[in-house]
Amino acid sequence: TPKIRHLPFENPYGTFKQRYLMADKHWKQPGGPVLFYTGNEGDITWFCNNTGFMWEIAEELGAMLVFAEHRYYGESLPFGPDSYRGSKHLNYLTSEQALADFAVLIQDLKSTLPGAQHSPVIAVGGSYGGMLSAWFRMKYPNIVVGALASSAPIWQFPGMVPCGDFYKIVTQDFARSGYNCDANIRKSWKAIENVSSTAAGLQWMTEEFSLCTPLKNKNDAFGFKNWLQETWVNLAMVDYPYEANFLQPLPRWPIQVVCKYLAFDSTVSDYQLLRGVSQAAKVYYNYTGSSSCLNTSQTATGSLGFLGWYYQACTEMVMPMCTDGVHDMFEPEEWNFQAFSDECNIIFGVRPRADWAGTVYGGKDITSHSNIIFSNGGLDPWSAGGVTYNITDSLVSIMIPDGAHHLDLRYSNDHDPPSVRAARALEVKYFREWIKQAKKSSTS
Amino acid sequence: TPKIRHLPFENPYGTFKQRYLMADKHWKQPGGPVLFYTGNEGDITWFCNNTGFMWEIAEELGAMLVFAEHRYYGESLPFGPDSYRGSKHLNYLTSEQALADFAVLIQDLKSTLPGAQHSPVIAVGGSYGGMLSAWFRMKYPNIVVGALASSAPIWQFPGMVPCGDFYKIVTQDFARSGYNCDANIRKSWKAIENVSSTAAGLQWMTEEFSLCTPLKNKNDAFGFKNWLQETWVNLAMVDYPYEANFLQPLPRWPIQVVCKYLAFDSTVSDYQLLRGVSQAAKVYYNYTGSSSCLNTSQTATGSLGFLGWYYQACTEMVMPMCTDGVHDMFEPEEWNFQAFSDECNIIFGVRPRADWAGTVYGGKDITSHSNIIFSNGGLDPWSAGGVTYNITDSLVSIMIPDGAHHLDLRYSNDHDPPSVRAARALEVKYFREWIKQAKKSSTS
Repeated sequence: TPKIRHLPFENPYGTFKQRYLMADKHWKQPGGPVLFYTGNEGDITWFCNNTGFMWEIAEELGAMLVFAEHRYYGESLPFGPDSYRGSKHLNYLTSEQALADFAVLIQDLKSTLPGAQHSPVIAVGGSYGGMLSAWFRMKYPNIVVGALASSAPIWQFPGMVPCGDFYKIVTQDFARSGYNCDANIRKSWKAIENVSSTAAGLQWMTEEFSLCTPLKNKNDAFGFKNWLQETWVNLAMVDYPYEANFLQPLPRWPIQVVCKYLAFDSTVSDYQLLRGVSQAAKVYYNYTGSSSCLNTSQTATGSLGFLGWYYQACTEMVMPMCTDGVHDMFEPEEWNFQAFSDECNIIFGVRPRADWAGTVYGGKDITSHSNIIFSNGGLDPWSAGGVTYNITDSLVSIMIPDGAHHLDLRYSNDHDPPSVRAARALEVKYFREWIKQAKKSSTS
Repeated sequence: TPKIRHLPFENPYGTFKQRYLMADKHWKQPGGPVLFYTGNEGDITWFCNNTGFMWEIAEELGAMLVFAEHRYYGESLPFGPDSYRGSKHLNYLTSEQALADFAVLIQDLKSTLPGAQHSPVIAVGGSYGGMLSAWFRMKYPNIVVGALASSAPIWQFPGMVPCGDFYKIVTQDFARSGYNCDANIRKSWKAIENVSSTAAGLQWMTEEFSLCTPLKNKNDAFGFKNWLQETWVNLAMVDYPYEANFLQPLPRWPIQVVCKYLAFDSTVSDYQLLRGVSQAAKVYYNYTGSSSCLNTSQTATGSLGFLGWYYQACTEMVMPMCTDGVHDMFEPEEWNFQAFSDECNIIFGVRPRADWAGTVYGGKDITSHSNIIFSNGGLDPWSAGGVTYNITDSLVSIMIPDGAHHLDLRYSNDHDPPSVRAARALEVKYFREWIKQAKKSSTS
């Protein structure tokens, strides 16, 4: 059951209602551990439902589960319906403030829930939520004894990793999933260009892709390409080994299904190729067959807070990405910070701070921290910005070669590859060690 | 020479001019260390001039010195003359923001000063500045390799240490400095009460103490007692073994000088006693003989930002203090959070958050951090809230039994007790170790 609480602001005066979900069915009180999900950019109930791992290990750990919603997302809106009205209201949407909210919530639970006072708390999160869980342990080691940061690209910031690696991984996923799959997607951009150069071509594409809004000009074709690019990226993120519904309802190994429609030889015509692309896109957007048309203004679940994340990218979360069309299957595009900054200025009246995340969260210099697991999937493009090697004995990497975006956090499944089963077992082993450490140090 | 720079705000848009001072005369570039003073609640030039220790060790360490001013103090006013106008402007005066300023400044210096890129940085600070240096290492271990937190009461927060210890130490300082000294101060409060109960008595006291503003009623007498109490506290803080001018110009071992005027037997009359108190107070307020009258609205140097610190106490820096009149020489007064909170609400329109500092800076649970020296003086009342024992091998305490408030940070003096000489030598030894560690890890 969702609970709603008041939490303080930076301004010691202001408070807002923060939502969090709790499950104490298996909690062994007093002192049983708490698994605390550090909510990311969306509705917390959605993350809660997509983090089966926590539900599955609660009993064996005797753990209470808490899922805390990130301020400015879901129902945790500091200024209610005005929360997104201008940078004045958005000014309190920062990752540091979100971490402080989590800290205050935990301290509050510990002091008010009977039996929780000495409970060790472990932070768990995936994606941006995983970044938050890692940073939470770094900044508040007094509050959480350790963190599982699943598919958390804490190094996807300026100067830390090559900007092209993200799209390289997307491309590899397609390359390994079907004959000529990446090559034909690489080819498709030019085909779109060619076909969309005439009114008839634009109309054909509109019909072929069953678009809700017709393509009318070159500008529309540009937006259409961006939408397709994002579609391929999303498929790479959710290339799970079983039928699932995370960003969209999808078959098992969806990229393999997509690639069946893209297995052309080099002799393929533009129209043939785009028909294949259209069928491929519909695997992603219409697997259930319930969509009457494809909406190019949306690429994923509405449970994610697109606008809030955009603002965060325009302030702290500056994540350089680029393509070259050679090592990846996309049209070449350099990382252009200035253009991005100008866009942010137009939309939100703010400009991003490229170095901030590195300064505040340590960048690659994090050796002095401890008790963080960084798990990453080999299929997941976000692993490009993740920690994929052991930094120290207690800042460890777990690689899941057959895993997409935070597969380890999902409910277990008969189709799970052995690598993710092993990863989960190892994660629980670390959890147990951290809990033991905490008990020891609190009794000494 | 003071330099002035722009630094970002929480709001990624706003910037303000932050002052910092630099000395690179002895700096061995490239890569020589930086000693970075984390400025506290006042004019940075004053702290700079009272931190001789850094100036004295710069040559042997080949170090550059940087003294960074804390936002809202000295010349570093984010909103210029409006900075203190209401809680709306004061909202950005927090220790977390100050730490972020320091981090950004250091990253900036490293990227712009030739030869500084690989310089290990050590944070140094005294008093609140010492708290900041400890917290800086805790929160930004990527920016500073270690910290010297001198006389830093990081545990002077609710629930961490007994609220009466502070005044007990003040009392002990007086008890050991002269015959019946503490007993006669304890007695003086009642004497003030008695004498101030008549108009003639009030006038006598005004003349005896050479007050700039005459005492007119009971309320004035109450304020007068508070002023005296603060005077004794300040004397305890600056009970240095040589003539010095920190809060005021004072003789060596000033409490011994003060106590000469308070060495009465139990037969002393109220008037005799208060004459002694008046002479004692004038040691503090008129050692140079240049004051024509005593101003009860001020107790120390104008270089400290009283109003800013008051605001910080009313938000984050909630430091419980209490007296019982038995274990200390003051009138009994309990710690009353509610009354304090109400006062804050009247003055600034904010209410303090009692638990915040503990949540954000870890309270007594800081074992997972490293490379911090906590030095404390046995004469310093602030040692009551300090770390006075080793927490781990790299969170170490250095005690200076004959030292008052951050004596170790001051210029060396022929009258320095051996304990402070030993403390400084040990501090430099740790600095060298941290620098060595940093060089090793940057080459590996």
